[in-house]
Amino acid sequence: MNLENDYKYLHKIDSPADLRKLPKNVLPTVSDEVRNFLIDTITQVGGHFGAGLGAVELTVALHYVFNTPEDKLIFDTGHQGYPHKILTGRRDLLHTIRQYGGISGFLKRSESEYDAFGAGHASTSISAGLGMATARDLMGKNFKVVSVIGDGAMTGGLAYEAMNNIGYQKRNMIVILNDNNISIEPNVSAFSNYFNEFFASSAVNSLRKGIWDMAGKMDSLGDRLRKFASKIEDGVKAIVTPGALFEALGFQYFGPINGNNVLKLVRMLSLIKDLDGPIFLHIMTQKGKGYEPAEKDSMNLHAIGKVDKLTGKAPAKTNTKPVTPTFSSYFGNAMVEICNMDKRIVGITAAMADGTGLVKLDKHFQNRLFDVGIAEGHAVTFAAGLACEGIIPVCGIYSSFLQRAFDHLVHDCSIQNLHVVFAIDRAGLVGADGDTHHGVLDITYLRPVQNLVFMAPKDEQELRDMLYSAVFSYTSGPVAIRYPRGNGFGVPIKPMSFLPLGKGEIVKSGSDIAIIALGTMVQQALKASEELEKYDISLEVINPRFIKPLDSELLLNLFSRFKHIITIEDSQKTGGFGTAVLEFAAENDIKDTVFHILGIPDKFIHHGTQEQLYRELELDSDGIVKKVLSIIPSYEKSNF
Amino acid sequence: MNLENDYKYLHKIDSPADLRKLPKNVLPTVSDEVRNFLIDTITQVGGHFGAGLGAVELTVALHYVFNTPEDKLIFDTGHQGYPHKILTGRRDLLHTIRQYGGISGFLKRSESEYDAFGAGHASTSISAGLGMATARDLMGKNFKVVSVIGDGAMTGGLAYEAMNNIGYQKRNMIVILNDNNISIEPNVSAFSNYFNEFFASSAVNSLRKGIWDMAGKMDSLGDRLRKFASKIEDGVKAIVTPGALFEALGFQYFGPINGNNVLKLVRMLSLIKDLDGPIFLHIMTQKGKGYEPAEKDSMNLHAIGKVDKLTGKAPAKTNTKPVTPTFSSYFGNAMVEICNMDKRIVGITAAMADGTGLVKLDKHFQNRLFDVGIAEGHAVTFAAGLACEGIIPVCGIYSSFLQRAFDHLVHDCSIQNLHVVFAIDRAGLVGADGDTHHGVLDITYLRPVQNLVFMAPKDEQELRDMLYSAVFSYTSGPVAIRYPRGNGFGVPIKPMSFLPLGKGEIVKSGSDIAIIALGTMVQQALKASEELEKYDISLEVINPRFIKPLDSELLLNLFSRFKHIITIEDSQKTGGFGTAVLEFAAENDIKDTVFHILGIPDKFIHHGTQEQLYRELELDSDGIVKKVLSIIPSYEKSNF
Repeated sequence: MNLENDYKYLHKIDSPADLRKLPKNVLPTVSDEVRNFLIDTITQVGGHFGAGLGAVELTVALHYVFNTPEDKLIFDTGHQGYPHKILTGRRDLLHTIRQYGGISGFLKRSESEYDAFGAGHASTSISAGLGMATARDLMGKNFKVVSVIGDGAMTGGLAYEAMNNIGYQKRNMIVILNDNNISIEPNVSAFSNYFNEFFASSAVNSLRKGIWDMAGKMDSLGDRLRKFASKIEDGVKAIVTPGALFEALGFQYFGPINGNNVLKLVRMLSLIKDLDGPIFLHIMTQKGKGYEPAEKDSMNLHAIGKVDKLTGKAPAKTNTKPVTPTFSSYFGNAMVEICNMDKRIVGITAAMADGTGLVKLDKHFQNRLFDVGIAEGHAVTFAAGLACEGIIPVCGIYSSFLQRAFDHLVHDCSIQNLHVVFAIDRAGLVGADGDTHHGVLDITYLRPVQNLVFMAPKDEQELRDMLYSAVFSYTSGPVAIRYPRGNGFGVPIKPMSFLPLGKGEIVKSGSDIAIIALGTMVQQALKASEELEKYDISLEVINPRFIKPLDSELLLNLFSRFKHIITIEDSQKTGGFGTAVLEFAAENDIKDTVFHILGIPDKFIHHGTQEQLYRELELDSDGIVKKVLSIIPSYEKSNF
Repeated sequence: MNLENDYKYLHKIDSPADLRKLPKNVLPTVSDEVRNFLIDTITQVGGHFGAGLGAVELTVALHYVFNTPEDKLIFDTGHQGYPHKILTGRRDLLHTIRQYGGISGFLKRSESEYDAFGAGHASTSISAGLGMATARDLMGKNFKVVSVIGDGAMTGGLAYEAMNNIGYQKRNMIVILNDNNISIEPNVSAFSNYFNEFFASSAVNSLRKGIWDMAGKMDSLGDRLRKFASKIEDGVKAIVTPGALFEALGFQYFGPINGNNVLKLVRMLSLIKDLDGPIFLHIMTQKGKGYEPAEKDSMNLHAIGKVDKLTGKAPAKTNTKPVTPTFSSYFGNAMVEICNMDKRIVGITAAMADGTGLVKLDKHFQNRLFDVGIAEGHAVTFAAGLACEGIIPVCGIYSSFLQRAFDHLVHDCSIQNLHVVFAIDRAGLVGADGDTHHGVLDITYLRPVQNLVFMAPKDEQELRDMLYSAVFSYTSGPVAIRYPRGNGFGVPIKPMSFLPLGKGEIVKSGSDIAIIALGTMVQQALKASEELEKYDISLEVINPRFIKPLDSELLLNLFSRFKHIITIEDSQKTGGFGTAVLEFAAENDIKDTVFHILGIPDKFIHHGTQEQLYRELELDSDGIVKKVLSIIPSYEKSNF
């Protein structure tokens, strides 16, 4: 790809200032070029795709009308942020996105002054924008603040808390709802139903067209538009636009307008830019816009790997053995199996039916999957309500997103000792999504939760057994199972069976040194154990299965047999699993054992492949071997 | 008080079934009796007061119309739940409320089958209600579900997430907004502004009166009312009632009606009881209703200690020395001081301006305190936005409520390394509010948060120094300070000064055994140290000041000098401060030191006074003495 040959404008746009030098009438061409560049690059290297394609015109228009980076432009999560990266000096780095050492897949304050607020989790942009607008007013500054939020993120309670607070504070800021009517999963909110009803009505559309054509013709807007708006607010508008909700929260509502028409957007943004008070602009965009395979796909190719540019399909794998399904997929299948066994079981997801594998419930049953929107807190308290009445809810939530529902887990499930099962997907390092998505805190923040049973499986079959046990056997309170992003190990799949509560297992006996390897770290430990045989070192490998309660018998036995014990976990060390072992040893007055705790250090881990990241942190079989060899030389082997 | 003499009905109401046997026309008298009983009892023993007084008629009407406990009645937080306790078999225990061994100040599933869902934190009732309604439908049962929520709790995002999801699921359930227009603090939401504008209009009221009088005259309601309601929904209602917001979310809106008129309530509840779909009833009540001192007080006597029944005033203290102000109060004063020093500093509260002491900012400054409503998540992300633009936000949030903002602290503040200060009030055991309010998890869940500086002061002056240092000295990322509910120790108040980052102090040198006492536990340790002198045991007392980063120099020195080290903290042991010391020792290959970790065990602690609870857990000076003596006899003192 040669930029100068392929593009008329894009190769000259090194910052939004360059964009703003162009005449308005070339913006459609610029938009097409941004889109083509995005398609060319992302079909080559993979990444979040559909959302960015839909947001091309919006991004061009925003940087054209607003004086970024002085004006603050806040995107809610970074899925839609790729066009923004292209226009803000990162065009030539886009091919490195989400790769080790490359630019982030999300916006990041440390990456660019144009990234006013970083976000990998949803629904934060309005709160953050209000903070910036308030700071501006306190300091007597004069920049604009624009928060862009998707209709999916709008289902999050944080967005509502912020809207409500903005209505009260009455600050000058603009919220743009980028409504593509599909977030990550097909839409599930009353909110959107409400929109759709209105959009269906032609009366609404012709009225709105009349109103806005009129507004567009006014040369000086200011007070006149506001008077006009306030007139309609009092009556007609409350009935004929979907803005009642936003007006009720104290915003002046405009829209909906076609958000894939860049000139219309520029006109509208110029009109509302200098209005006073909280302004709400509702635009409709098409996710995957301008790339046929994405437009046709029901998920609009939300995120892709490398695909064929023409078909949007992943390249055919040649001559490779079939890939083992993901843990999420095994979880989804196991849910179908147990839902067939007992009709009290249901699945709950916060807009991640596909990601968690729970989508399979919808294919096999009616009313067994509840997708509550991007609303983890509600997902968990809703589950608590279900459990009160004898339903067995299984909440499938990613580790880092569960942080949103921490109080709900504590206050609504644990304190009331309700039998809610948490399937914590994406535990550990997740790879390309980077620091906002790594699931490295859950062990620490869940360990002190009273009444909780907490497990991590060594492989996909054990995940099945743990789910089975969590649902049918450990029924006296909340139960959590954490498992990683990625594929299973291809172990034989057997009927599910009960695991005794609080009991670990010796996976491989050894005589020189022992390792307690949490979850899938067991596989790395076994590999290390083979390697260590070359050094004539015999490593015992323990699968603890339980983070809480610990297997005290197994641990005491281990302490009596080994001087050195290594623990390894795919989670942060501070307060983690290794720490749990330390605490247990201290409580039991264990004095002669030396503990070596391996885990993720207390710092942020950026993006890369999971393998790259674990290797860098020496949390793989090589790291274990290295650790063991560092311990062994300092002792005579016979002393072990 | 003799029930049979004083009351005509109340002494015969041992359960809602007894209430339902009474003729409708005596309900006003029953309501008066419940109110009088509540006033008589709570002015004697103290407790939450204003909310319950306002909810008397609602509670009577709900238990009269609905078939509790088969029908599920869910109160949002328990402040308003006292009349419910009186009517559901706990009348004769009300005088024990919030006392050690007595009934809880909140609703609790383990206390009564009538407490369908327990809650000390706000905004959970709608989510929980939806869970119960969903369970009912899945199981083919037929009970009713009613969630009662206050206007304060309605500002929480969880309430919105649930409303939105109910609108989508379209289940039969009723949400009652008990709108007393003051939550704990004077109202701060756009939401309520919106209501108030409408209530002010007499046109609204007369129209509504006409509509509802008409509805009331229909003998068979069902379809006719619904047709009627749907007609007005399409047009007039969206303009003339404050229901637009709720209608937009998929509810059928009724109200507002006078919620202190029990007969009106009974009529209305009977009308809407069997309607299909999500129903929203908006009632207006007066907090403190029927008790003159509460009606006149701006906070409506939200919670009281023992007061004079006639005046509502606390009994005059005779002959006692003046009480030292609370930590919250010292914090509030310190905030005023530092806000005077630097105009970049602001306070943020989630509807707890008074409780946190931040209310003082409003008295001394304009625009330096931001009360965002019951919305901890937004409070923190809003603070992150402020910090992006150079403001120094100090979030005053109770420890247990901060659980609601865990992800916001991690994802928005820590990952972006923003200088946001967290003043974590009510850390440790809080006393009468019990298990939902104890702040015993914060050390564990905050310890792994990257970039965080985390402190606990030994007394009120150190709190001042820590705040000063957090704001002006540790400016490279988020900083948290945890301190307890209750009074300071009366130490001299000096000008604030900087504390060196990550440095603890030896408060009292000793030679036999050392105790690292976190925060105000230093005072208990000093007391124990005096007591131990009687046994000729010399206890060294360390104030670590920092939970993160630890003072490695001090700790290593300590390990070199003492064989036995005790740690004590007013927080849960699992993953707590003592564990941090253990982790540090393991990392530094410390082999000869024996650690004794004192802290709150991994179980729920119920209510009582703070003193009673700490004594029971042996987390006071006596407990320390006992612990030391249990260690000492097993060694010759000379070996220490």
